[in-house]
Amino acid sequence: MRIGAIEAGGTKFVCGIGNENGVIEDRVSFPTELPETTLRHVIDYFQNKQVDAIGIGTFGPIDIDPSSPTYGHVTTTPKPGWGGYDFLGTLQRAFNVPFGWDTDVNAAAFGEAKWGAAQGLDSCVYYTIGTGVGVGVYAEGKLVHGLLHPEGGHVLTRRHPEDAFAGICPYHGDCLEGMAAGPAIEKRWGVRGGELSPDHPAWAMEAFYIGQAVAGIIVLLSPKKVILGGGVMHQEQLFPMIRAEVQRNLNGYVAHGTVLSGIDSYIVPPGLGDNAGLSGALALGLAAAGR
Amino acid sequence: MRIGAIEAGGTKFVCGIGNENGVIEDRVSFPTELPETTLRHVIDYFQNKQVDAIGIGTFGPIDIDPSSPTYGHVTTTPKPGWGGYDFLGTLQRAFNVPFGWDTDVNAAAFGEAKWGAAQGLDSCVYYTIGTGVGVGVYAEGKLVHGLLHPEGGHVLTRRHPEDAFAGICPYHGDCLEGMAAGPAIEKRWGVRGGELSPDHPAWAMEAFYIGQAVAGIIVLLSPKKVILGGGVMHQEQLFPMIRAEVQRNLNGYVAHGTVLSGIDSYIVPPGLGDNAGLSGALALGLAAAGR
Repeated sequence: MRIGAIEAGGTKFVCGIGNENGVIEDRVSFPTELPETTLRHVIDYFQNKQVDAIGIGTFGPIDIDPSSPTYGHVTTTPKPGWGGYDFLGTLQRAFNVPFGWDTDVNAAAFGEAKWGAAQGLDSCVYYTIGTGVGVGVYAEGKLVHGLLHPEGGHVLTRRHPEDAFAGICPYHGDCLEGMAAGPAIEKRWGVRGGELSPDHPAWAMEAFYIGQAVAGIIVLLSPKKVILGGGVMHQEQLFPMIRAEVQRNLNGYVAHGTVLSGIDSYIVPPGLGDNAGLSGALALGLAAAGR
Repeated sequence: MRIGAIEAGGTKFVCGIGNENGVIEDRVSFPTELPETTLRHVIDYFQNKQVDAIGIGTFGPIDIDPSSPTYGHVTTTPKPGWGGYDFLGTLQRAFNVPFGWDTDVNAAAFGEAKWGAAQGLDSCVYYTIGTGVGVGVYAEGKLVHGLLHPEGGHVLTRRHPEDAFAGICPYHGDCLEGMAAGPAIEKRWGVRGGELSPDHPAWAMEAFYIGQAVAGIIVLLSPKKVILGGGVMHQEQLFPMIRAEVQRNLNGYVAHGTVLSGIDSYIVPPGLGDNAGLSGALALGLAAAGR
């Protein structure tokens, strides 16, 4: 099979072709512009590629309710031109194939469960911590949706006792995204995170917030793997610090060896690395094709 | 069909017989004693009742992993005699019928989705707020488990600015259960909640903690219904206060009419009232029977 995959980010789009084994055979990338321009590039790329299905993992929020008249639309993003745009419908009119459609983080969770760090498991959560914070949830072998889709970047966390930063979330101020996304690090410390040394106190504070959120999702959902991706998580020193914060917060309550003694292989980077997003879109496309 | 149902609580057991329409035709109740004594009562009740299956919704934590050698056991409860007890196996040796086995709160969520406040929906969360705080999660038409089962009573919440109470959770001190369970109310105010007037400041504080946790589960899982049960929720004045706290915390972020304008029918008491637990066990039994 030839499956099309679209990783639609707020900054750039990645399109590719893959097969049923998760192998990506071709890819292109271009900046995210106004939707008509961007989707024209997407359509040009897939024209004459003879794909059997296309999977889309996209920035959001998006309408994922198949019974809704605006199914497939981007909803309330501040991104110019994209609010209310019929993203899925535009592609459906161009290509008469089955489409998979979900958030970028749900797609990444799905790809990781199929070919990555959660391979063979029926549950995992996928965090991206970068320009924003997003959470994909895979439970009982299914991607989770409800009224809308998970927006776990906006959970409230307790404030670090030495942190006076107000937070940058326009809705909640100091929710997880408001305190721990890349732009929050930059605004709090006055320089981009990438310029801070690995032993800068910024990282202990970052681990404090992320570890608290991860401990919360562990008690709530008991996922079999916690995967932390996104630009901020390229700071590898964060992993042991976050694991320690999770154990401090849980304090032995979740009495399972995976958490108590196996945490180094429980809270991990994406097994697919920076391919998690595109591979996830490929997995959505495969599922749409019935595979 | 004749389905057996067991609602196993830390204080009392309720056993009953029901049919495929959710009608409970007979029931008995007795105090929870040592496990051998209690299970003897259960076995005596179901003897000669000719049930086609039995569903069990129980206090926990319990082992719900079918591949585990201790599947069906109670795990780490401080309740005398119950830690490590083979609850399910004892009944399987007495009755050669299919068994459903899950937590009391997952059972209640399942029953509410089948016959109660979430009827016809493919997702809901069920909170019990009483002696402890438990959360059942039903998503994408399935009860959610993972490494273990949800233990959402132990999420951390931010402290109410006027609350100096340390909390009663032996693991976390001031987690949700530590601050909002019935015994926390009693210890904080010096009298049982039932003796406080409906306009006592205790209830605004209670709504502060519950509303914060519910807002958190809404961003994380986007459930189609939030059901609040348990003894503390018999204080009906809490419902409008909790709804207001949820909206204050979300601050318009979850842009769905159900949350923005329909919240009175979104955050609700159990549709099955105090039958939610036993009906949930009945639903588990029906599912075990393939119905």
